[in-house]
Amino acid sequence: MPYRPVLTSAARPATVTIAAVNEHGEVVPTPIAGEHPLTLYLDKREIVTLMTLGGAPEALAIGYLRNQRLIERLEDIAAVQVDWETDSVAVTTTRSAVDLDARMGKRTVTTGCGQGTVFGDLMEELGQISLPAGARLDEATLYGLLDAVRHHESIYKQAGAVHGCALARGSEILMFVEDVGRHNAVDAIAGQMWLDGLDGGDKVFYTTGRLTSEMVIKTAQMGIPFLVSRSGLTQMGYDLASRLGLTMIGRAQGKHYLLFTGAQHFHKSAATHA
Amino acid sequence: MPYRPVLTSAARPATVTIAAVNEHGEVVPTPIAGEHPLTLYLDKREIVTLMTLGGAPEALAIGYLRNQRLIERLEDIAAVQVDWETDSVAVTTTRSAVDLDARMGKRTVTTGCGQGTVFGDLMEELGQISLPAGARLDEATLYGLLDAVRHHESIYKQAGAVHGCALARGSEILMFVEDVGRHNAVDAIAGQMWLDGLDGGDKVFYTTGRLTSEMVIKTAQMGIPFLVSRSGLTQMGYDLASRLGLTMIGRAQGKHYLLFTGAQHFHKSAATHA
Repeated sequence: MPYRPVLTSAARPATVTIAAVNEHGEVVPTPIAGEHPLTLYLDKREIVTLMTLGGAPEALAIGYLRNQRLIERLEDIAAVQVDWETDSVAVTTTRSAVDLDARMGKRTVTTGCGQGTVFGDLMEELGQISLPAGARLDEATLYGLLDAVRHHESIYKQAGAVHGCALARGSEILMFVEDVGRHNAVDAIAGQMWLDGLDGGDKVFYTTGRLTSEMVIKTAQMGIPFLVSRSGLTQMGYDLASRLGLTMIGRAQGKHYLLFTGAQHFHKSAATHA
Repeated sequence: MPYRPVLTSAARPATVTIAAVNEHGEVVPTPIAGEHPLTLYLDKREIVTLMTLGGAPEALAIGYLRNQRLIERLEDIAAVQVDWETDSVAVTTTRSAVDLDARMGKRTVTTGCGQGTVFGDLMEELGQISLPAGARLDEATLYGLLDAVRHHESIYKQAGAVHGCALARGSEILMFVEDVGRHNAVDAIAGQMWLDGLDGGDKVFYTTGRLTSEMVIKTAQMGIPFLVSRSGLTQMGYDLASRLGLTMIGRAQGKHYLLFTGAQHFHKSAATHA
């Protein structure tokens, strides 16, 4: 059994329904995605306020701290307590895991939305990341995953205005998280991977969002060698993926895709390379 | 003539072309959006590093400082100097415009992507915003604007992976900015509005992105009474727009839309209400 901190289980309803008026003057009941502030306290110190759908607030808090390198091991977390009365999540550690002042002081921002917050010097840490050299993904498995994503029940289908991320083993979706912020969705998966004791080496990460620098960095930090998206990519996402040896596939939908980086890990046919 | 600080003019090429491989095994030259770090210094103090397309870096820097309430008037800015050799933009002020330490100390995050950075206490300032009570938009003008956006040349059509924003007067697009981060695009428009001495009261703001809390806040801060998007909205975006009296129209494309808030400012017909 992997270690478990004390956790609340405080997911919020994903959508509310409002009355909109369409071009015919008709009132249309319209489901919209929830969006709530959640202020994160680490050992009583205020770190950040995230705007979130609220579907997985405990995993989000853990994953945020993991991806910002503010917590180094799950075992350092004693408790994660979400309280929607005060829109807050209190994370208590068993010891001062990192030098928080040093991390908070140097605020480097590397983000897909262009204005996220990443503490510390992530870029320098990238040199330490090593993805499995023998990782391989074949086209049939990719198509199977795209099909699984397409059939997955989602808030997006109902209300739009959210991004989705999936952690997959082959074509099988292990986790699927949606949030108003796509980085929240990634962070929540990173948090849940820690909680479930999952390694990234044999996984595929799928996102509906664009393949920007921050998405590449976070996938590599989770140790996942494959990053798949319905969308396109940016120059820095491309440069970083090339440098890290990450296999990146974009514009992936139905039976279409573009293989951008890491061609040596991707095979059109499962049989001939087995 | 509105006041002009000393400005560089350091836009970067918007796209680069890489070689991708498609599902037929064919090599496909693929234009991708540029993405570059730009570290913002305010009077030699490091504020933030933005990841940007780099199409309007001076306006972005000014608009970022405006929207974060770190600069109160354009006249307080002496110079904005972008240097891509060092990936930096140096903003020099004529006086210490705000109490920077107090602003930087209280970091409230209110963002659409879920993890942006907004300094100071923006939410408290919202009470001071007053949008023009007599603002009005009719359906034909909205359709005209959607048509203008559709015909606008864009990086998105070529490379995807960017968000676009437009400032319009009626159906006429006055500015159109794209960026890898949609908040960068909004900020660049806010900066350019200052540079051009434009008031928001008779304008319409269009975005390809979702109508989240931060998008509503920034539109209201620019004094613009109408916010139009191709996408959907979130609960907090809806709540804030209702409270601010902002007219918000989503899912707007072709001859379709959903009117979410501010129905008293929107009219189906121009003639009968003239």
